[in-house]
Amino acid sequence: MDVDKKYFKNISPRERAIFEGAITMGALFHQFDGTPVSLKTAESLENAIGKAMELQPCIKEVEVKINRQMLIDIENKFQYVSLSGDMLDVKVISEYEGQQAIIRLEFIKELDYPLMYVEEID
Amino acid sequence: MDVDKKYFKNISPRERAIFEGAITMGALFHQFDGTPVSLKTAESLENAIGKAMELQPCIKEVEVKINRQMLIDIENKFQYVSLSGDMLDVKVISEYEGQQAIIRLEFIKELDYPLMYVEEID
Amino acid sequence: MDVDKKYFKNISPRERAIFEGAITMGALFHQFDGTPVSLKTAESLENAIGKAMELQPCIKEVEVKINRQMLIDIENKFQYVSLSGDMLDVKVISEYEGQQAIIRLEFIKELDYPLMYVEEID
Amino acid sequence: MDVDKKYFKNISPRERAIFEGAITMGALFHQFDGTPVSLKTAESLENAIGKAMELQPCIKEVEVKINRQMLIDIENKFQYVSLSGDMLDVKVISEYEGQQAIIRLEFIKELDYPLMYVEEID
Repeated sequence: MDVDKKYFKNISPRERAIFEGAITMGALFHQFDGTPVSLKTAESLENAIGKAMELQPCIKEVEVKINRQMLIDIENKFQYVSLSGDMLDVKVISEYEGQQAIIRLEFIKELDYPLMYVEEID
Repeated sequence: MDVDKKYFKNISPRERAIFEGAITMGALFHQFDGTPVSLKTAESLENAIGKAMELQPCIKEVEVKINRQMLIDIENKFQYVSLSGDMLDVKVISEYEGQQAIIRLEFIKELDYPLMYVEEID
Repeated sequence: MDVDKKYFKNISPRERAIFEGAITMGALFHQFDGTPVSLKTAESLENAIGKAMELQPCIKEVEVKINRQMLIDIENKFQYVSLSGDMLDVKVISEYEGQQAIIRLEFIKELDYPLMYVEEID
Repeated sequence: MDVDKKYFKNISPRERAIFEGAITMGALFHQFDGTPVSLKTAESLENAIGKAMELQPCIKEVEVKINRQMLIDIENKFQYVSLSGDMLDVKVISEYEGQQAIIRLEFIKELDYPLMYVEEID
């Protein structure tokens, strides 16, 4: 079966790149939100999240940054914390038939909210 | 701040509907995958998943069906099972500025895989 | 195979009740942390979490309370929030061979931390 | 506040080691179940899970093994799979006041079930 022809003929390559990137961003957030993290373990977690989510369909690269300053501040009180959206800065780069999209998760101070949006699109 | 103007002016309303629906579908799968479920609790879980995910931006409705036949088969052996993609049939209906998209998660036997795709789009 | 004889003969019924209750509490927290929730959906989510986790081995009852005042405060700003440990008050009642344990998850203000402990034990 | 005196005086050090190890095992399973994984990413994921869960209270060491043969078998068909209990072999070593417990998660073929039990206890 040609999955693309059967299930995806109603959307353009540009829309497909957006679709797959957005799925992966939603998945990433809800899979790893709540994971224990500290300054010492942040890098290992960033790498594992990136590699895991790069396995998803049409995903070319996933860059994950966990805010170190927040970890430093928190670790004055606790030894670790649960990973949450306000600590995360993520780029998911998706591609379908040469069309690329960069989906971003960024904590927007003015909104006090971790926003997901399309940062770049061909 | 006008979030839509600042962060979403590079995509069309149709693309926005796809984007938000896809985020919610990826989120749903990875939030609830692994939840203990049985015939007795399936309906309560379906309802709670639907209501929770309808809170996300631009989501109009979320319909969740957990495959009862699979639960019956499994419960001959165990009293419960971990929720997984092959038991789920989900529709996420998203809308932005009158443009609607229906995102579907469906287990495709021929692929032996729970596929996410855009089922309907204006 | 007698699972209890083969795998659990090295711990007492009291220890078994603690063991199974603690597994379920850790599982509950990390399964549902991050779920979107609002005043309107809190009750449905509490019920579904309780029913799901009551399926686990040796679990008699699970009571979940999501802090409504926090939801009210948050909803002045947002329409929903991600479920987190500081909103949760949970009792997991486990039992093995007549020995009962109540495991509690409670946000302790003085610690600024959602603590899990054995609230009552025979 | 002395948390141990206030909240844990009703259980012995041996019970405390069981309690904390069991919480961490339940947490581990439900946090990471569903994560995309392949032969190429398994080691990175094992390390990140281990390091994350070692942050929890009273946890000395966490060893995570993801079944490579299952990944090989699956990758004949797919490029990746969702992490599930039948692929996991985990040891959580907890300690409180010199009392140590080893909690094990192991897939038991005869039961067709990923069992959590106390493998060793002082």
